[in-house]
Amino acid sequence: MRYATVRHAGRTAAAVLDGTDLVLLDAADVGEALRAGIADVRPTGERIPLATADLAAVISTPRKVICLGLNYRSHIEEITGGAPLPVYPTLFPKWADTLTGPADDIAVPPAELADRIDWEAELVVVVGAPIHRAGVDEARAAIAGYTIANDISMRNWQLRTDQWMPGKAWDATTPLGPFLVTGDEIGDAAALTITCDVNGERKQTGNTADLLFTPAVALSYISTFTRLLPGDVVLTGTTGGVGMPSGAATLLVPGDVVRTEVEGIGVLSNRIVAEGDARGPRA
Amino acid sequence: MRYATVRHAGRTAAAVLDGTDLVLLDAADVGEALRAGIADVRPTGERIPLATADLAAVISTPRKVICLGLNYRSHIEEITGGAPLPVYPTLFPKWADTLTGPADDIAVPPAELADRIDWEAELVVVVGAPIHRAGVDEARAAIAGYTIANDISMRNWQLRTDQWMPGKAWDATTPLGPFLVTGDEIGDAAALTITCDVNGERKQTGNTADLLFTPAVALSYISTFTRLLPGDVVLTGTTGGVGMPSGAATLLVPGDVVRTEVEGIGVLSNRIVAEGDARGPRA
Repeated sequence: MRYATVRHAGRTAAAVLDGTDLVLLDAADVGEALRAGIADVRPTGERIPLATADLAAVISTPRKVICLGLNYRSHIEEITGGAPLPVYPTLFPKWADTLTGPADDIAVPPAELADRIDWEAELVVVVGAPIHRAGVDEARAAIAGYTIANDISMRNWQLRTDQWMPGKAWDATTPLGPFLVTGDEIGDAAALTITCDVNGERKQTGNTADLLFTPAVALSYISTFTRLLPGDVVLTGTTGGVGMPSGAATLLVPGDVVRTEVEGIGVLSNRIVAEGDARGPRA
Repeated sequence: MRYATVRHAGRTAAAVLDGTDLVLLDAADVGEALRAGIADVRPTGERIPLATADLAAVISTPRKVICLGLNYRSHIEEITGGAPLPVYPTLFPKWADTLTGPADDIAVPPAELADRIDWEAELVVVVGAPIHRAGVDEARAAIAGYTIANDISMRNWQLRTDQWMPGKAWDATTPLGPFLVTGDEIGDAAALTITCDVNGERKQTGNTADLLFTPAVALSYISTFTRLLPGDVVLTGTTGGVGMPSGAATLLVPGDVVRTEVEGIGVLSNRIVAEGDARGPRA
């Protein structure tokens, strides 16, 4: 199954894909549908073609967005220059406000505020059942499905101090979607190609088979210290090929188009724009 | 004015202190009251004596809880051993789930999971008006008031990787309260004694005059990358005297009582208990 959150008639609604149409559900987003029990949420009777739908972040108002860093060997190598592999997951947060839709413009601040704006294509796991101190098997069984994010990062803010959050939590900079894809289509998302292109040039290529901490292991670890609930979102980290190691003074700039794909899930396509120039929601 | 959130009749309610009584308000907590405009929230007609009230975290379900690290000279010295003062605030997150009431037991995991459980007394600033890219004066004017937290920290989890969050985000480990105290009583909270005692022994003594980044400066800085809204919570950092620098293998253990005070605001008093032994809400 493929679920999306669509902007329609001045609100957002969860929807399920049926052929080339989205069938709207009686929930404000896929997160609310998961909390209500997504199989029990009734259709509203409305259908809209996917081709013209204006998609919001598939989970629009998560309680928790937790991100892993340093989780693909290729990225660990480019960042650490060959340090031993981490023993524990590196975790940092985003907020619901950080998210945006899979085709939305990403408004970035003037260069004097943020001058190295980088891409990070990521597989995302969405929680479907409450877990606390879960083992890996229980955590795996609690996964609702998978989606895609690009953890657009303001490197100068990320690296000002030891703690990365200020470079990772700019409002409306992390596209999330387009679909929550469930296990019947995608299994454990265990060997999927993941790519990021900027203006048509391939920047990142990886495969989820190279994740150091799998989605189930990550959820199990996080559930040691905090209860995870349906609709909670975990970004699993990015693969090699981010812009920062090049040392370039400028990475993404207004006008660039960032295309992020995970095999079997879909594509995010986001234009970088200057603040004030963002295209509003189409609906 | 002094506002609290009280557990009463199977729910929580915002309340305002009137002499020795809490006058209940028609809002689920002080955060909801702030979002509604706290001066406009009507009393429910119920009063309960403060002396017997069961207080919840004063902001019970904040959208954002952002914490500063390394913000008192005395603490920077004990942690860094004399490194230059930071140029930028160090920021990390908590979640709403991390919070607990000002007199609640704090349930800690078995020592094999978390063996160095530390105290961190902190002044907390609560946002009262929306701000984005606010200057310091605008940020100061947006402050709803001040409260107290103890950022109880699982040091072994905090220091497993570069990113501190996993040591700072254990569910129901950060007491927050007892009151939101507004500027008419406390001004800018600019020169208040802050202390932490464990089992009656003074561990931390500091003064908010020594904050490197003041509450208004911290809010202004955070508002650069994310819009702050009424009810958002910012912990301003702890003063010298935390347990970690002693190198002790064990810090807080079940049976200990942690007392956290900020002059002019009030006192948090929390007993550390083993998981499974926590006293439930009294109401």
